[in-house]
Amino acid sequence: MINETYKNMLKGKSIIRQLSEYATERGREIGYENVFDYSLGNPSVPCTQGYTDAVIRIHQQENPMAIHGYSPSLGIEKVRETVAASLSRRFGVPYEAKHIFMTSGAAGAVAHAVRCVTKPGDQVLTFAPFFPEYTPYVNQTGAVLKVVPASTKDFQINFEAFAEMLNENVAAVLVNTPNNPSGIAYSTPTIERLARILYAKQKEYGHDIFLISDEPYREIVFAGADAPYVSKFYDNSISCYSFSKSLSLPGERIGYVAVNPRATDADIIAVMCGQISRGIGHNCPSSSVQLAVAQVIDQTSDLSVYETNMNLLYDALTRMGFQVVKPGGTFYIFPKALEEDANAFCSKAKDYDLILVPADNFGCPGYFRMAYCIDTEKVKRSIPVMEKFVREVYNA
Amino acid sequence: MINETYKNMLKGKSIIRQLSEYATERGREIGYENVFDYSLGNPSVPCTQGYTDAVIRIHQQENPMAIHGYSPSLGIEKVRETVAASLSRRFGVPYEAKHIFMTSGAAGAVAHAVRCVTKPGDQVLTFAPFFPEYTPYVNQTGAVLKVVPASTKDFQINFEAFAEMLNENVAAVLVNTPNNPSGIAYSTPTIERLARILYAKQKEYGHDIFLISDEPYREIVFAGADAPYVSKFYDNSISCYSFSKSLSLPGERIGYVAVNPRATDADIIAVMCGQISRGIGHNCPSSSVQLAVAQVIDQTSDLSVYETNMNLLYDALTRMGFQVVKPGGTFYIFPKALEEDANAFCSKAKDYDLILVPADNFGCPGYFRMAYCIDTEKVKRSIPVMEKFVREVYNA
Repeated sequence: MINETYKNMLKGKSIIRQLSEYATERGREIGYENVFDYSLGNPSVPCTQGYTDAVIRIHQQENPMAIHGYSPSLGIEKVRETVAASLSRRFGVPYEAKHIFMTSGAAGAVAHAVRCVTKPGDQVLTFAPFFPEYTPYVNQTGAVLKVVPASTKDFQINFEAFAEMLNENVAAVLVNTPNNPSGIAYSTPTIERLARILYAKQKEYGHDIFLISDEPYREIVFAGADAPYVSKFYDNSISCYSFSKSLSLPGERIGYVAVNPRATDADIIAVMCGQISRGIGHNCPSSSVQLAVAQVIDQTSDLSVYETNMNLLYDALTRMGFQVVKPGGTFYIFPKALEEDANAFCSKAKDYDLILVPADNFGCPGYFRMAYCIDTEKVKRSIPVMEKFVREVYNA
Repeated sequence: MINETYKNMLKGKSIIRQLSEYATERGREIGYENVFDYSLGNPSVPCTQGYTDAVIRIHQQENPMAIHGYSPSLGIEKVRETVAASLSRRFGVPYEAKHIFMTSGAAGAVAHAVRCVTKPGDQVLTFAPFFPEYTPYVNQTGAVLKVVPASTKDFQINFEAFAEMLNENVAAVLVNTPNNPSGIAYSTPTIERLARILYAKQKEYGHDIFLISDEPYREIVFAGADAPYVSKFYDNSISCYSFSKSLSLPGERIGYVAVNPRATDADIIAVMCGQISRGIGHNCPSSSVQLAVAQVIDQTSDLSVYETNMNLLYDALTRMGFQVVKPGGTFYIFPKALEEDANAFCSKAKDYDLILVPADNFGCPGYFRMAYCIDTEKVKRSIPVMEKFVREVYNA
């Protein structure tokens, strides 16, 4: 008696994954260097030497029983203290270890945070364009994800649509800044306005509304961007972080939940995450990976290539006539397609070995995402190909 | 609006964890060497040098982008192939990579397997004594865990009670052999009889009944024990494994689900696990840990200390007049308490700094568990203390 719900989920194979597999396959035919694969958000720079050295040092010098022993389900205490101290120092929010729960990346963090502050039937609002995995993260808790339409002129928040969708059943609002897929960071005025509205609505509805902030791209911010730390602006906030992008460790599945110390029940949310984790059998991230990231807590990989690539693509796309908002961070750019159906547009681009992701799944039809976490040399070679594609297919 | 269900779970703090914390605290007062802490199942031997060398070699020599890149959600393909080949070679069940799903230890494996083969409302039967974490693993899926009373004379299966509890709503049976907490391995006749019954009931009810076999202690088997590989006996079986005990890596959270290739829907169960994992945001275990265990797939730590400790304790307990079945594996022994209330018994033992776990939570009141994954020297020192306790309190 196979579970039909999960069986049916097998049909919903990610378009990103499909395109990435196509790119790999096509690479086998014509050489992967000739496929301009903008599909996957896999970091293209190595982790720091400091991280590698920390792993080696831990394994060479420390007692194996200590480094591989059971981690408490909330994470190793010293690691939680290190995370709390770093966040407090950098962002001025007075976290303590008890507010930190170590997770399997931001994915685990978001899924746990949503479970903590919603009950089945509650609504969670997020803003288009949005990371499509939010749908399973939220819906498997029994809460319901509702998507506020995009503000396509700047990819800040569409506050008019947000106001219409707010209602008493909203238990949480989920934001992602800098944003996948738009590359845009919410500005200080945007977050201030969001916080004002949420404070007012909490009062009006007589219950908490939590702001869950998904921040895997927090450290990838470009020159001139206004990308403030969300939790500074709103007490009932939960930050969800991952070292996947900042340290280029997506396979290691390491991140955390940081509960704002001023949030309602701030002292028990991390403990609740531990109970949730226990029920799904996950428990906690690798103990040695926890210890290693704690040793390089304030390091990042050399992330400058992403800004270089962004500038190259932004200039080229603008020159070619694309409507595109300049990213403030991440390694994504999010132009409008040259025809209404972005699927058709991306499908035609495939004939030029340009692998672009149509944005229907991101809640923003008519747009496409380019993940430019690839070599700058390849970005440069892709530009004449894009020009040829646009010229030949769209006479642009 | 904190989720009340998860908040209420905070009250159910594990007795094992409480006793372990008490032991640590008491150790600060009188020196931990003077606390005979039999509470926690934390391995007491280091991982193999081969594992440590593999981690160091991978980090020194391999491309960081390859070893820390996203793992597919089912696990790294080469790792899954290595696991399948090892199991096929050792146990004669023809696994392929597609039957393997890499997990966060056996906990993750069991939680995912239960979700795959049950739907909310279904019953999952397990046999006392049983690992108390099965309750959250099963109940958080929406299925309902039912516990078949123990066969206390030998801690094999109580088939009479099992027959009475079988009904059309049973979707899965969950076994754990060698068993935590009894230390007993199910014998070949026990598993053969279980399989015969399940085949007959599948036919009678007209639906699959899956046998989920939780096997973290598979490699800790003592001389003379008959501890066969469960999946060989029953097609609809799913093995749930962990490297926590065999390689002493509990903090690394690494294990797998192995679906019997002859099971119904054998080719999609691992993929379904991937979808479930995605929804809870967990995705997969650490990529570098996956790569490292694959390099030492057939190694185990030096596990002989557990058998040494078991023999010492078994002889001493028997001599003292305890009713106790000789363990066939694990690092647990499970004697009957000297009074009806094992909580009272264990509480009195605490006064002698003997930390024993009462078995009410294991579904077997009146018994207690000793986790003898501690130094042999300490086991030896604990015996006269136990004798003193038994003599002074029970005149035995």
